[in-house]
Amino acid sequence: MHEFKYVNNHLYCEKVKLEDLARRFGTPLYVYSYHTLIDHFIKLQTAFRQIEPLICYSVKANSNLAILKALVDKGAGLDIVSGGELFRALEAGCPADKIVYASVGKTDREIEEAVRKKILFFNVESGGELENINRISKRLNRVSGVAIRINPDVEPKTHKYITTGKLTNKFGIDFKSAERILLLCKRLTNIRISGLHIHIGSQITESSPYVSAITKMVDFIQRLRRKGVDLEYLNIGGGLGIVYDRETPQTAARFAARILPLLKETGLKIILEPGRFIAGNAGVLLTKVLYIKPTPKNKFVIVDAGMNDLIRPALYDAYHQIIPLKVSKYQSIKVSEKVDIVGPICESADFFAKDRRLPKIKEADFLAIMGAGAYGFSMSSNYNSRLKAEEVLVVKDRVFTIRKRETRRDLISKETIPAFLL
Amino acid sequence: MHEFKYVNNHLYCEKVKLEDLARRFGTPLYVYSYHTLIDHFIKLQTAFRQIEPLICYSVKANSNLAILKALVDKGAGLDIVSGGELFRALEAGCPADKIVYASVGKTDREIEEAVRKKILFFNVESGGELENINRISKRLNRVSGVAIRINPDVEPKTHKYITTGKLTNKFGIDFKSAERILLLCKRLTNIRISGLHIHIGSQITESSPYVSAITKMVDFIQRLRRKGVDLEYLNIGGGLGIVYDRETPQTAARFAARILPLLKETGLKIILEPGRFIAGNAGVLLTKVLYIKPTPKNKFVIVDAGMNDLIRPALYDAYHQIIPLKVSKYQSIKVSEKVDIVGPICESADFFAKDRRLPKIKEADFLAIMGAGAYGFSMSSNYNSRLKAEEVLVVKDRVFTIRKRETRRDLISKETIPAFLL
Repeated sequence: MHEFKYVNNHLYCEKVKLEDLARRFGTPLYVYSYHTLIDHFIKLQTAFRQIEPLICYSVKANSNLAILKALVDKGAGLDIVSGGELFRALEAGCPADKIVYASVGKTDREIEEAVRKKILFFNVESGGELENINRISKRLNRVSGVAIRINPDVEPKTHKYITTGKLTNKFGIDFKSAERILLLCKRLTNIRISGLHIHIGSQITESSPYVSAITKMVDFIQRLRRKGVDLEYLNIGGGLGIVYDRETPQTAARFAARILPLLKETGLKIILEPGRFIAGNAGVLLTKVLYIKPTPKNKFVIVDAGMNDLIRPALYDAYHQIIPLKVSKYQSIKVSEKVDIVGPICESADFFAKDRRLPKIKEADFLAIMGAGAYGFSMSSNYNSRLKAEEVLVVKDRVFTIRKRETRRDLISKETIPAFLL
Repeated sequence: MHEFKYVNNHLYCEKVKLEDLARRFGTPLYVYSYHTLIDHFIKLQTAFRQIEPLICYSVKANSNLAILKALVDKGAGLDIVSGGELFRALEAGCPADKIVYASVGKTDREIEEAVRKKILFFNVESGGELENINRISKRLNRVSGVAIRINPDVEPKTHKYITTGKLTNKFGIDFKSAERILLLCKRLTNIRISGLHIHIGSQITESSPYVSAITKMVDFIQRLRRKGVDLEYLNIGGGLGIVYDRETPQTAARFAARILPLLKETGLKIILEPGRFIAGNAGVLLTKVLYIKPTPKNKFVIVDAGMNDLIRPALYDAYHQIIPLKVSKYQSIKVSEKVDIVGPICESADFFAKDRRLPKIKEADFLAIMGAGAYGFSMSSNYNSRLKAEEVLVVKDRVFTIRKRETRRDLISKETIPAFLL
């Protein structure tokens, strides 16, 4: 569910007409719905209320400070993956003891900062990292919480690039090695084993991979308990899929119903790390049609957003629904045609949709690329020396700029031409 | 040819030991060799000296101001694809009459700026764009040069994402439509037809696709001449391939030998738009090994650079040679093993090499990812809230920072948390 709807043939975000925003702020423009964001968070909270999990929003999905602050205010913790995200989490006012930190490549500096800030725990991805955290914590005279990230070797049935819980992936530790590491942990003086972590992938639309992974975890937890390893948390990660096209992902309630019995069986406190589920359908990317270009083989709709703004179609062959901000005349005429919707960037990877049937579009029309709230702006770049887009947050009838558009000066502000070239 | 070589078991860039740079500036770090860059430019200039082409370096390959200035000083023009690149070109001191501007999605504002600055010409990609340029030029009381970009429908035998000269691509105009447009042009009062443009793709390692495309162009030019359309320029674009792995691309000299007869036949001034050929092997990305992670199925070398720094492997499945900055002990032991070299980012797309045979690597070693001078930094992002890397230019024994590393403050400098959330 989201709050982007047509009213009198105009697409609205909450109470605001999107065409007005496109004209006022220019395009490309990211628009987020505050109530959609919060609604998704509450839905998850409600679905799992029997066990009162800590819901750590996955910062990498959309790391804008205003988005983080909005969720933290509702009680969310944060799932971070870098020192930069730790910085953001703290800037957004997240209590350190609601921050969990995953990443296969934590640097010493990043570990030190997180230890000093006393985050809840690290999701540890390798034996080397565990020793590193112990060594650094010792130097700082701290005892740091860690959850061992298990690679449960399950197939999440999603894109290979966002599959993370198979043994061929770089993530986590297999059960056998994890058990060995957990038993060895007892001799690490500055580590406290807080729990276990899994994260099997992203955009997963059915509960069976979770059931399969968590079932394995329940067995493992019981086995560990028998060996004298007591745990406090089970972090089941994120990866809940959303509707981009015709997926029929399980609702939060149905997902909870399937896995709650298993979770209760663990007797542990539960952590969830949703990102896309919360932010994905809470944001759209608005773009303007620059040219309609018919060619002998295709009809191209060339828009002013590019793969630098939203790389998911190029990188994951991802589907995004694309709809006009104004529909009246299209709908009444009932004319549709097959087009390729492409950006201005000079490579063929720069597309948003291929062979897509759309109502008839003309130059200067505005389009909304739906489901762009997660892994949209956060993956954006300055490729082709394009400026990163503006981001606005809509709250009923109010609109807030939460990130200003970059300027051309910004592009070069860190660059210097050496004196010998001047 | 490039100036990255081992001397006494240490990898050097020109006269500078790369390990010293990695320690001094930190990693990830982009290092460019000034003399390699200039050498590539001169090689191309020399190969084509019979016809004295204007060589417009393709800014999108690597748009750092210092790189642009270095080439402009040697006589290069610039090939731009956006208003941001126009801004960079002018900041780097490129004369406007050496700038050509391609892109399927030029906005009115971008066109107006380029018209005002009096660039050499626009590479025009559609009839709609041509009329736009005419309209805007008229309003500004100017006559603007245009080259019609032809889509010659040839197969360049490269990655589908960097194939640009097939009829299914969004680029250029087919011969038949181009002829119609060129004849219609006569009634456009504020357009001067400067010539024709082709660009068939990128990383093309043999001359036959060029020969085939240029042969078609020669016929077309003669046909146009008979119809009274006189041209001044033929812009043959870029796309010259380089060595990443075991490619054996043609040298500039051999390439020139194949196509010079055809180019002379046109009687036109020639423009080339090389990007990768000049910058690709003039840059490397230095990275530090954070963890060695053996798993039941793979051995992972986890480094501190990520897909946000260099996205080519994830996006194009591109091969980059990866070598250690110090080799003595590896080479003497002659031990090698198969590893996956991956970054710290939380998705499986974040890799630099898979199943790569490498000398034995250990934690804290430094590696050079070769051939990262083009489409490396220019495509980089802040994904996972990571800071964009520093860029340095080496000139013999001197080292210049040409772009400072980003700071965490930079990440959020454009963001604002709305008052209602504070």
